[in-house]
Amino acid sequence: MPSEQNLINRIVKAVVGKSPTKSGSNLSLGIGDDAAVIRPRGTHDWVVSCDQSLEGRHFLDGIHPPEVIGFKSLARAVSDLAAMGAVPEFFFLSLALPASKTGPWLDGFARGLSRASSEFGIGLAGGDTAQFENVCINITVTGCIKKGSAVRRSGARPGDAIFVSGQLGSAQFGLELILRSPRLRKKYPVLLHEHFYPRPRLMLGQWLVRKRFATAMMDLSDGLSSDLARMCRASGVGARIYESQVPRCGLPPEVSKLRLSNIKMALHGGDDYELLFTVRQKDVSKIPWQFHGTRISNIGTIIREKNVWLIGAAGKKSRFKPQGWDHFATKKAR
Amino acid sequence: MPSEQNLINRIVKAVVGKSPTKSGSNLSLGIGDDAAVIRPRGTHDWVVSCDQSLEGRHFLDGIHPPEVIGFKSLARAVSDLAAMGAVPEFFFLSLALPASKTGPWLDGFARGLSRASSEFGIGLAGGDTAQFENVCINITVTGCIKKGSAVRRSGARPGDAIFVSGQLGSAQFGLELILRSPRLRKKYPVLLHEHFYPRPRLMLGQWLVRKRFATAMMDLSDGLSSDLARMCRASGVGARIYESQVPRCGLPPEVSKLRLSNIKMALHGGDDYELLFTVRQKDVSKIPWQFHGTRISNIGTIIREKNVWLIGAAGKKSRFKPQGWDHFATKKAR
Repeated sequence: MPSEQNLINRIVKAVVGKSPTKSGSNLSLGIGDDAAVIRPRGTHDWVVSCDQSLEGRHFLDGIHPPEVIGFKSLARAVSDLAAMGAVPEFFFLSLALPASKTGPWLDGFARGLSRASSEFGIGLAGGDTAQFENVCINITVTGCIKKGSAVRRSGARPGDAIFVSGQLGSAQFGLELILRSPRLRKKYPVLLHEHFYPRPRLMLGQWLVRKRFATAMMDLSDGLSSDLARMCRASGVGARIYESQVPRCGLPPEVSKLRLSNIKMALHGGDDYELLFTVRQKDVSKIPWQFHGTRISNIGTIIREKNVWLIGAAGKKSRFKPQGWDHFATKKAR
Repeated sequence: MPSEQNLINRIVKAVVGKSPTKSGSNLSLGIGDDAAVIRPRGTHDWVVSCDQSLEGRHFLDGIHPPEVIGFKSLARAVSDLAAMGAVPEFFFLSLALPASKTGPWLDGFARGLSRASSEFGIGLAGGDTAQFENVCINITVTGCIKKGSAVRRSGARPGDAIFVSGQLGSAQFGLELILRSPRLRKKYPVLLHEHFYPRPRLMLGQWLVRKRFATAMMDLSDGLSSDLARMCRASGVGARIYESQVPRCGLPPEVSKLRLSNIKMALHGGDDYELLFTVRQKDVSKIPWQFHGTRISNIGTIIREKNVWLIGAAGKKSRFKPQGWDHFATKKAR
């Protein structure tokens, strides 16, 4: 059984890969003291968020490889920075795990974390480790943004157009494959990619902030139906969504017997980490159809009436009720 | 089973007690969005730390009341800010818990958290909740300190005097009572106070920073023998500690049959959250014997030789080896 210091050293070595205090230009003091010290830039606000990733809830032991768990734990937290339009700076890792996972499992986890850390440009600045029965990860991320320019959930106004990035439901599709077809999962690993390695839309979020196009923004972590309801509640508005315009993933013929509905997955599936944002009508034409390879779709309109409606392909209007993820209502891992 | 939103609302109501966005003067955006936005003061550095409190590791279900768990989880994290000399500002709560604890247990937990939040002057700014088999708490704290004045572990120099605040071993004593004598625990609840409600030494830490007296500082969370070894390693020095000068708690006669050694508990017991700090010889006389009711003791000297020695009451010199808490070596809750 390795000591706590040994575990910390291995994580730091994998993720930082060099003197930890040099990982960020404005990190005065990093790992190894009681706390990290960060020098703020006077022109910027500081953005902070935290996210848990728990065994059996957010990932399944024996099904999700440790590299995936490391990558995705950080990606999920960084996505909250993307949703504000912030630039990632540092993260703090709290990791509780059983003795049985302090060997190769931990090294795999650290590799995934390291990959996400490089890809999103966010440096490890501190953390905490402890022994526990189940793996329990908490990641706190910090970022910066020009003073006063963070985009909130509460700024959507009647008449604003509603946009989403990417293809919704891809992560849910990966999860269904994992849970329902070990054969297909092995045969088409590429289909699991969106579920395993979500990419927070950092560049898009930052661009929308620079251009001041987004009146409200959030990331899609619990499914469009649940997250849109939250944005509408925060903004005191309602919405009309056109089902035919919601971007969904294509389903390969091989999975036909799983009887999956790509529109249902797009409307309610969680874990996509795409951006949901609203734009004033006068700016709609300035939003491109594609941004650095990521599709952008105009899926509806904000309305004054505080209900959320779904307009079906045949024009039928129905209530679009939250059916996504609630951390206390469902049991399934994602 | 309450919804996630219901849980969040109850925690926020108990801890913030008013509009969350008004909890701190420089919090531009608080609970309810993807992330919190904090406006920095140009004259100050940020200080950030995180700490886990896990069921069965840091507290025992059925033995530690939820109020105690709430209070202590925040106190443990805030103690890291005290150890830098920082002023607490905000905290972020990640809470995973089973459905069975979402009723009165959660309300008790929130009350304890709220009490600590008021007492330490730190406002809830965000968090994350999820359902899980065991209670798993992570608290990230942020504070501020005048630019460049945070006190590190690594500044101790040969000749510096070594000080500790308070009476060491009191928290360990409370734990021993809990684990070994249900009768005494009920009869003398006051003896559990230091174990249940540790007080981070915020004022002392801030005073030492203002006066520039501390060359190195850390909080005692894992026991003097373990934490002093860490400070010496970080500073590249050794130490000589005089056993007779280590402040220990008095043991009431009622506990004599438990055969507890108050000096052993003072040397190795964890969870005290007192401050360990070093001071240049020229400043030693400026350190008071007592600071706002908290005893301050000069317990030894930093030496060039990289070993830590304990000088016994009879003058006998022996190696002072780390025998405190290692999060991966021991099993006992504390």
